[in-house]
Amino acid sequence: MERYQVAIIGGGPAGYTAAEAAGRAGLSVVLFEKNSLGGVCLNEGCIPTKTLLYSAKTYDGARHASKYAVSVENVGFDLPKIIARKQKVVRKLVLGVKAKLTAHNVKIVTGTAEVVDKNHVRCGEEVYECDNLLLCTGSETFIPPIAGVDTVPYWTHRDALDNKELPQSLAIIGGGVIGMEFASFFNSLGVQVTVIEMVDEILGGMDKELAALLRADYAKRGVKFMLSTKVVSLAVAEGGQVQVGYENAEGVGSVVAERLLMSVGRRPVTKGFGLENLDLQKTERGSIVVDEHMQTSLPGVYVCGDLTGFSLLAHTAVREAEVAVNHIAGKEDAMSYRAIPGVVYTNPEIAGVGETEESLQRKGIACRVVKLPMAYSGRFVAENEGVNGLCKLILAEDDTILGAHVLGNPASEIITLAGMAVELKLKAEEWKRVVFPHPTVGEIFREAL
Amino acid sequence: MERYQVAIIGGGPAGYTAAEAAGRAGLSVVLFEKNSLGGVCLNEGCIPTKTLLYSAKTYDGARHASKYAVSVENVGFDLPKIIARKQKVVRKLVLGVKAKLTAHNVKIVTGTAEVVDKNHVRCGEEVYECDNLLLCTGSETFIPPIAGVDTVPYWTHRDALDNKELPQSLAIIGGGVIGMEFASFFNSLGVQVTVIEMVDEILGGMDKELAALLRADYAKRGVKFMLSTKVVSLAVAEGGQVQVGYENAEGVGSVVAERLLMSVGRRPVTKGFGLENLDLQKTERGSIVVDEHMQTSLPGVYVCGDLTGFSLLAHTAVREAEVAVNHIAGKEDAMSYRAIPGVVYTNPEIAGVGETEESLQRKGIACRVVKLPMAYSGRFVAENEGVNGLCKLILAEDDTILGAHVLGNPASEIITLAGMAVELKLKAEEWKRVVFPHPTVGEIFREAL
Repeated sequence: MERYQVAIIGGGPAGYTAAEAAGRAGLSVVLFEKNSLGGVCLNEGCIPTKTLLYSAKTYDGARHASKYAVSVENVGFDLPKIIARKQKVVRKLVLGVKAKLTAHNVKIVTGTAEVVDKNHVRCGEEVYECDNLLLCTGSETFIPPIAGVDTVPYWTHRDALDNKELPQSLAIIGGGVIGMEFASFFNSLGVQVTVIEMVDEILGGMDKELAALLRADYAKRGVKFMLSTKVVSLAVAEGGQVQVGYENAEGVGSVVAERLLMSVGRRPVTKGFGLENLDLQKTERGSIVVDEHMQTSLPGVYVCGDLTGFSLLAHTAVREAEVAVNHIAGKEDAMSYRAIPGVVYTNPEIAGVGETEESLQRKGIACRVVKLPMAYSGRFVAENEGVNGLCKLILAEDDTILGAHVLGNPASEIITLAGMAVELKLKAEEWKRVVFPHPTVGEIFREAL
Repeated sequence: MERYQVAIIGGGPAGYTAAEAAGRAGLSVVLFEKNSLGGVCLNEGCIPTKTLLYSAKTYDGARHASKYAVSVENVGFDLPKIIARKQKVVRKLVLGVKAKLTAHNVKIVTGTAEVVDKNHVRCGEEVYECDNLLLCTGSETFIPPIAGVDTVPYWTHRDALDNKELPQSLAIIGGGVIGMEFASFFNSLGVQVTVIEMVDEILGGMDKELAALLRADYAKRGVKFMLSTKVVSLAVAEGGQVQVGYENAEGVGSVVAERLLMSVGRRPVTKGFGLENLDLQKTERGSIVVDEHMQTSLPGVYVCGDLTGFSLLAHTAVREAEVAVNHIAGKEDAMSYRAIPGVVYTNPEIAGVGETEESLQRKGIACRVVKLPMAYSGRFVAENEGVNGLCKLILAEDDTILGAHVLGNPASEIITLAGMAVELKLKAEEWKRVVFPHPTVGEIFREAL
């Protein structure tokens, strides 16, 4: 029986990060992955969506080039080629992950692994012995039990990513990050998109004011939004279209669209790998209890990534994996969820980190909010003709940076500046002592301080 | 005689930042500006160049859209319109500066101011009394005393920004930031560009390896570089072209071009405003001595911005102005030059902050250098088809972050992350505890740690 210091189930961001870190720390590591290395994030999530969205952004950029005194004619796109390029990018990055793991002597086992007990994992005919076990099985699309759901064809994000024929119209159930990124993509390419969202604003968890501004922007571009609207039935309509029955304050009705994308959310994968063979302590809501080192109630058994149910974000998974491996390797570290950024890669992007006005209100914590139009950044003005945006900083009464929220490109890249400030608990005047290069969009934070 | 607590000469980034900060602190402020508020940076520097460069980037983006499966035909540009848009952006931002100053009760006086003594400034017929005096007169283009310089027409950056007719060819003397940004702009628009640089690499002060990579990239796109080449003569050639005589290791020769851009450097403006009426202590090299509060040898007299001769960068000026005003207002603060970012807005951008390998070598300080291709960032791969880039981190022996250098978009925006790490003296493991959103280009730093 092969024996390893670390066994990892799942090769997504949590699993591959843990494997690389453990290998680098000189530990012997076996990683089990039943599909492709990189997990959902790399194969059918973060990276492929960003690849498609960049093609859409290029297309939008060409169509609106005249704003910058550049003329073009006959702007078009080739969807099968956009998809093919996405595959190429994914392949390249998967190979990169594999190369890094190999370079750090990680044994990669392709197959469905099953936990026998905390020190044994079975995969196929083999049983592997391990000192430490990391569970990084990720999450899967949640399909809500809507009446008729089994009778209609629908896309999940995976199908939407590989679809090579544009529909005339697309109904999206769920206006979260995934729903909005696909709404953005298909809207750019000319599809009539309708987003149906159960609660009263899209992008739950993000700053509500910025989310509303983004929604208004996409509404102008033709996306139809139905908020506070519950989907109650699904049926096949004439011509093979999908009929989405809904209820809201105005009554009942239906949306008919050529395609339907289901993006109401994701949930941890807890079945199919022998989790039940470990007697792990759970919370009331059914999540596995972990300490600040990502260790479960069983010493030597760790949970990282979406399986924790905390944030379902790749970058959280990466950090959790590092923390777990540091604990195994005896290096001091602890997980902090103080500054987990959230990014939506619409165009413009929206990003936030730390507390929102809403989260502080719920906690009853007083704060000071500074709002500044993005036009206070000279670079933003130079590069965003006719585009508005907003930056919002949330400060504690003692001027500690608690949160930041940005609508405007490149929110995704500059939000990390605020993430550093929040995580390091900087006060406004400490952050302001840092020299920000001019002209940059990131200066907006400094301007707001 | 009007009396103010703070009098400021010069309305560029140093001057207008100081004026706004002082006004906000409740001090009475008078600001003298002989031209347009915003100084060189806003009117004929940072902002206008970025506006032009963004049009060029849009043009390049459209021409290469097929890399992302987007098709376009007949891509063109309209230079007069590009220039007109630049003017519009500048006007908008100048108005923004004016509005901020007015909102903070700053008295703006348009005219040439002259220092009478440390407590009196004359402008036109009026003499203004002041408790504190801030000198923020900035810098001007240095025209080297090359033989024949007075006999040929040449552009400075100012002319290049307003030029509405593309030349066939352009010779640029000086391959620094200004030279390279214009080389990038005119190369994108199809002009045959030759850059003549006295020393052995372009972009002195930036990481030398990255500068060489950028140079190689532009050379592939048709820019001709002549390094270690001294310009020795200028003359008018046939057809009104300019003949640039040079000397280098291979001998003597000449470059003939339709236009000539002079961008060898800038130097502080020390004349024309009565500086000689203050008996300020100077360094051996002639710079005005200031302490960590930007105060000169005369208490109550401060120097901020390019006039200090330290970095000739707008963002340095901004920070210096804040430090000076904090000192006047009795608030603890001190200037730090530990992490002044440098950015070149070529496409791709190149940016750096803190120490370089070269600067540490000169100081005899040991360091660890980590280099990572930008392709280690999934987002970079998704958005930069066929483009290479490099990230370099410089760490002290105890793993403190000393410097960072990036070639690849958006280097300008992400370099501030490293700037925060350098200024806050973070160690690698402290920086790594910050969660960077995935996928972002900024993650490259975390990956390199």
